[in-house]
Amino acid sequence: MDGKGAGFLETIRALTFDVFGTVVDWRGSILTEGQRLGAARGIHIDWAQFADAWRSGYRPSMDAVRRGDSPWVNLDVLHRRLLDDLLVRFGVQGLSEDDRVELNRVWHRLQPWPDAVEGLQRLKRRYTIATLSNGHVALLTNMAKSAGLPWDCVLSAELARHYKPDVEVYQTAANLLDLEPRQVMMVAAHESDLQAARRVGFRTAFVYRPLEFGPTGQPDLPGVSQADVNADDFLHLASQLGA
Amino acid sequence: MDGKGAGFLETIRALTFDVFGTVVDWRGSILTEGQRLGAARGIHIDWAQFADAWRSGYRPSMDAVRRGDSPWVNLDVLHRRLLDDLLVRFGVQGLSEDDRVELNRVWHRLQPWPDAVEGLQRLKRRYTIATLSNGHVALLTNMAKSAGLPWDCVLSAELARHYKPDVEVYQTAANLLDLEPRQVMMVAAHESDLQAARRVGFRTAFVYRPLEFGPTGQPDLPGVSQADVNADDFLHLASQLGA
Repeated sequence: MDGKGAGFLETIRALTFDVFGTVVDWRGSILTEGQRLGAARGIHIDWAQFADAWRSGYRPSMDAVRRGDSPWVNLDVLHRRLLDDLLVRFGVQGLSEDDRVELNRVWHRLQPWPDAVEGLQRLKRRYTIATLSNGHVALLTNMAKSAGLPWDCVLSAELARHYKPDVEVYQTAANLLDLEPRQVMMVAAHESDLQAARRVGFRTAFVYRPLEFGPTGQPDLPGVSQADVNADDFLHLASQLGA
Repeated sequence: MDGKGAGFLETIRALTFDVFGTVVDWRGSILTEGQRLGAARGIHIDWAQFADAWRSGYRPSMDAVRRGDSPWVNLDVLHRRLLDDLLVRFGVQGLSEDDRVELNRVWHRLQPWPDAVEGLQRLKRRYTIATLSNGHVALLTNMAKSAGLPWDCVLSAELARHYKPDVEVYQTAANLLDLEPRQVMMVAAHESDLQAARRVGFRTAFVYRPLEFGPTGQPDLPGVSQADVNADDFLHLASQLGA
């Protein structure tokens, strides 16, 4: 806790969570579902590479919305555009429209990291816990049902019609929670997200997710973060936050 | 089910719930908290009358917002204006500012009808269950925590910056759930709410709450409603909806 003392913790009323990578393992989930679909349809590609490519298109496509080059569209639309391109690039043939819709919705069914549900249940006893994701409300709601994530409420970039790290996303969340920014702590595995939240006045917690980008990926490292709290997982976070 | 057949039920994906009166007993909760506060502060008034008066100011104050006579303000603000007037009208003296803030927040702590939590838990297994209340997101989130209401997501008039029965509230909810109106069923103890939802294309379920306005009050009656489903409580609703 970097010696910030008990007063700091007493101020926090709500925790807002980045979701993709912080709460759920997008890469492992897409890999598993892709391999299953591949086995069923005779598609032989490297699904880990496919997952990485899909994810890497995500930031540029949101940035086009953030710059105003594209009107607001939700992640299903952005993911689908990327998916159609990727299927061509990877030479995948024989997927019906229904197959594509279903594959695109893998983002609604991502699996939580092993510590996530138990950690959230503990944190929920003491704090309001909410999503604060670039995923839209419907996606996050479906994911919560399938993964058993016990959110108190589902907040999203969609409610601000801006994507993170635009400050409007964090400001809208604090307004909807009817809290001052200093009463809210952003939890993420990504320093850029925490930096933006900090700029608005949120407290921040970094959670290290070493496998987000796979065994050879390069996730953000704990030492780099200027967060108020650094945690190895959600159980460690709960312990540090007195929950 | 009025002979509408199984196809009708198969279409429904989400249930949106009116909250005040439908899920929680605002009158009984205010009565209980008021009497407790009265005993502690030596205030001898008829708290049932007080609760009824508070609630009866609610619709006119929202209608001022709906007509555009007042800018958007949330229910805490509307409730507080009404409360300050009522304390004068009932001749209540000696309440500190903290007392008033605390009393005003009784709306965040309303108690559920006895069948509500169990009914919602059953309904949640088959459907997405969401609030769709004139209460703001923070109020509904706090209430869910204190009353144990297991919402999948918290939707509110606040997200449309319109109060029910403005159609924008229902349209915004369907958009956020990424569903067509016919895939959503509005659940309420108030026919006016259901009428507005029906106009937008929602399915509707009427739940009879005979004691909402107290033992001599005049709640909406089941026979009057043109809802697709009529239920005596949330358990009866769950049974009719196959949950």
